[in-house]
Amino acid sequence: MSTITAPSNPEADPRVKAVFDDIRATRKTDFINNMWRYLAFDPTLLEQTWAEVKRVMATPSSLDPLTKEMVYITASIINGCSYCVHSHTAAATAKGMTREQHAELLAIIALAAKTNQLATALQVPVDPEFQKG
Amino acid sequence: MSTITAPSNPEADPRVKAVFDDIRATRKTDFINNMWRYLAFDPTLLEQTWAEVKRVMATPSSLDPLTKEMVYITASIINGCSYCVHSHTAAATAKGMTREQHAELLAIIALAAKTNQLATALQVPVDPEFQKG
Amino acid sequence: MSTITAPSNPEADPRVKAVFDDIRATRKTDFINNMWRYLAFDPTLLEQTWAEVKRVMATPSSLDPLTKEMVYITASIINGCSYCVHSHTAAATAKGMTREQHAELLAIIALAAKTNQLATALQVPVDPEFQKG
Amino acid sequence: MSTITAPSNPEADPRVKAVFDDIRATRKTDFINNMWRYLAFDPTLLEQTWAEVKRVMATPSSLDPLTKEMVYITASIINGCSYCVHSHTAAATAKGMTREQHAELLAIIALAAKTNQLATALQVPVDPEFQKG
Amino acid sequence: MSTITAPSNPEADPRVKAVFDDIRATRKTDFINNMWRYLAFDPTLLEQTWAEVKRVMATPSSLDPLTKEMVYITASIINGCSYCVHSHTAAATAKGMTREQHAELLAIIALAAKTNQLATALQVPVDPEFQKG
Amino acid sequence: MSTITAPSNPEADPRVKAVFDDIRATRKTDFINNMWRYLAFDPTLLEQTWAEVKRVMATPSSLDPLTKEMVYITASIINGCSYCVHSHTAAATAKGMTREQHAELLAIIALAAKTNQLATALQVPVDPEFQKG
Repeated sequence: MSTITAPSNPEADPRVKAVFDDIRATRKTDFINNMWRYLAFDPTLLEQTWAEVKRVMATPSSLDPLTKEMVYITASIINGCSYCVHSHTAAATAKGMTREQHAELLAIIALAAKTNQLATALQVPVDPEFQKG
Repeated sequence: MSTITAPSNPEADPRVKAVFDDIRATRKTDFINNMWRYLAFDPTLLEQTWAEVKRVMATPSSLDPLTKEMVYITASIINGCSYCVHSHTAAATAKGMTREQHAELLAIIALAAKTNQLATALQVPVDPEFQKG
Repeated sequence: MSTITAPSNPEADPRVKAVFDDIRATRKTDFINNMWRYLAFDPTLLEQTWAEVKRVMATPSSLDPLTKEMVYITASIINGCSYCVHSHTAAATAKGMTREQHAELLAIIALAAKTNQLATALQVPVDPEFQKG
Repeated sequence: MSTITAPSNPEADPRVKAVFDDIRATRKTDFINNMWRYLAFDPTLLEQTWAEVKRVMATPSSLDPLTKEMVYITASIINGCSYCVHSHTAAATAKGMTREQHAELLAIIALAAKTNQLATALQVPVDPEFQKG
Repeated sequence: MSTITAPSNPEADPRVKAVFDDIRATRKTDFINNMWRYLAFDPTLLEQTWAEVKRVMATPSSLDPLTKEMVYITASIINGCSYCVHSHTAAATAKGMTREQHAELLAIIALAAKTNQLATALQVPVDPEFQKG
Repeated sequence: MSTITAPSNPEADPRVKAVFDDIRATRKTDFINNMWRYLAFDPTLLEQTWAEVKRVMATPSSLDPLTKEMVYITASIINGCSYCVHSHTAAATAKGMTREQHAELLAIIALAAKTNQLATALQVPVDPEFQKG
């Protein structure tokens, strides 16, 4: 299915094992999802990607974890990444997203898609009130 | 600048005036931004678009108003709508988004763009754990 | 396959049943395609989406039904929605799109993609003749 | 504004002059819009692009000229090409698109954007009825 | 799976056979991949598409063949074309792309996606130094 | 123009000054383009973005610097980032991209856009030959 062959025994590489161990420790689960198993085809890319995901998504910050996942879902839908829509919808659900919140999130994304297209279609000029220096 | 000529006196049309009055009342401001002034070229499209924006964005719901605006910003960036990025960044700021939250939002969008592309590039298969019926 | 679990017996919910009945009556068929079966996970989202599809697509208007479907196919291709490319190509075919028209539609979409990229690459300035007030 | 310097006297190049002459003859106007003036930076790219535009858009075919322009507008909006949205909205207007048809076109594009996002968000499986061999 | 039915015996049509023969001769292989088998549903579209692919991709030029394939992969990922990501990753590999080059290509695409979103989010004004006439 | 106010004296912040100094040293120029001046609104985002740009783009690697810039241009065009199309076209030109190479790059991007749309429109199934484990 994929464009590369994922390593059959990725943790034989100590750099991969270190990342996988950190994923398990950070997420408190034994489950390593396919994204990481495939990125393991290049340990450098794996290390850098995980480091950024951990820093941005798994560190306490000014946005709460569920809001962060909902932003991630939004990006994944619009960027058209099927894998990511699946993984982040699952992550948001695990963090407590209710069916009602999910449906409302989709309603906002659908509305934004609509008004984004309308503004582009009309080439509406930006109000001076919205422009910063 | 735009692809259509916005009506010079839009509120001469009672349907447009009714929408503009409702925008002013809902938002508690006299400011009508250009999106609505240009959509007024077709009163039906104006009415339907505002009705949906009001229902989705200005009605108390399971998501708080700031979260909704941050989702809208995310969509607008990825859909490449310059006007909408401006208007919704201004709206989020008006609803209390701090500089720190803004920067963090951008960090998530930037990270999602990155991992979305990587998953698409590798065509990572969806884990069975993420699939629903 | 999907990110949510579609209701196994959606018409047990009277709001879902009302929408499904209206789909069947409007389209003069017993076939309810998956889009509606999955949107039924949230009756409000289902009702609002169907109401808009019915109003825009199934009401006589200034554009003929086949033209409307071809515009919908175009949007679905560029937005990268596999499901929608399938469903609207089937709908256009049901409304009489010939193989020749289909191929020509694709030729226009392919050409537009090409010139859209070229204009963006060169950042061609908009001619004053094309700008409205 | 642009990323390249358009030739100041493009028709000094006989290959460019031949294309510009054909544009004027085909369109029955002296106006050469900026797209062609900038593509003239590379005569080969200019020749090939115009040949395809002429073949696809300016040759009688199974789709009428206004429908073709409306498909082109749709693609240009979704591909986010500001220049092309301007030029093809002007072209469609010149070919008789009414305000009502324009507004309806935008309503379809807006609706498609919405349902495209919803289908992607839910990862709705394609109905067997829509699949061909 | 597809939206059209591919011809079961495409080479019965002499125009299709001529294109397939040219593909085999140009690529020095008997393998005709599905893209061409499906485009054969319309011989004109097949002929024109192959002519352009041959001219742009299979003719010695100012860019080397591997660079061209890496640009094609980049476009295919961002345009969200699963088929094309597969076919051009395979083509680049056949032309010698190493695992290291592949991983580095993905790192650039991922970085570009990130900074593209950031620049759009901030609506950074273009420096005069970058603007041509 | 932008959605934020860029700091008027960004190097008053020692973290910003350190990044700007490194940009000047790495690029051997005094010119700091707007991308960095605007990202300076959040020193953390600035530091992380520059660190990644420096690592991916300014470090000797398996791809030559001009190829890397051409991939970056490709991504920027398709992601619709006007700022980035400008800055990376300028960077590629500074690294020796000829007019002929530029035109050829655009021809590949334009062709890819075309075939990407065609494959999506037809939903061409991926050949088994292109699939890895």
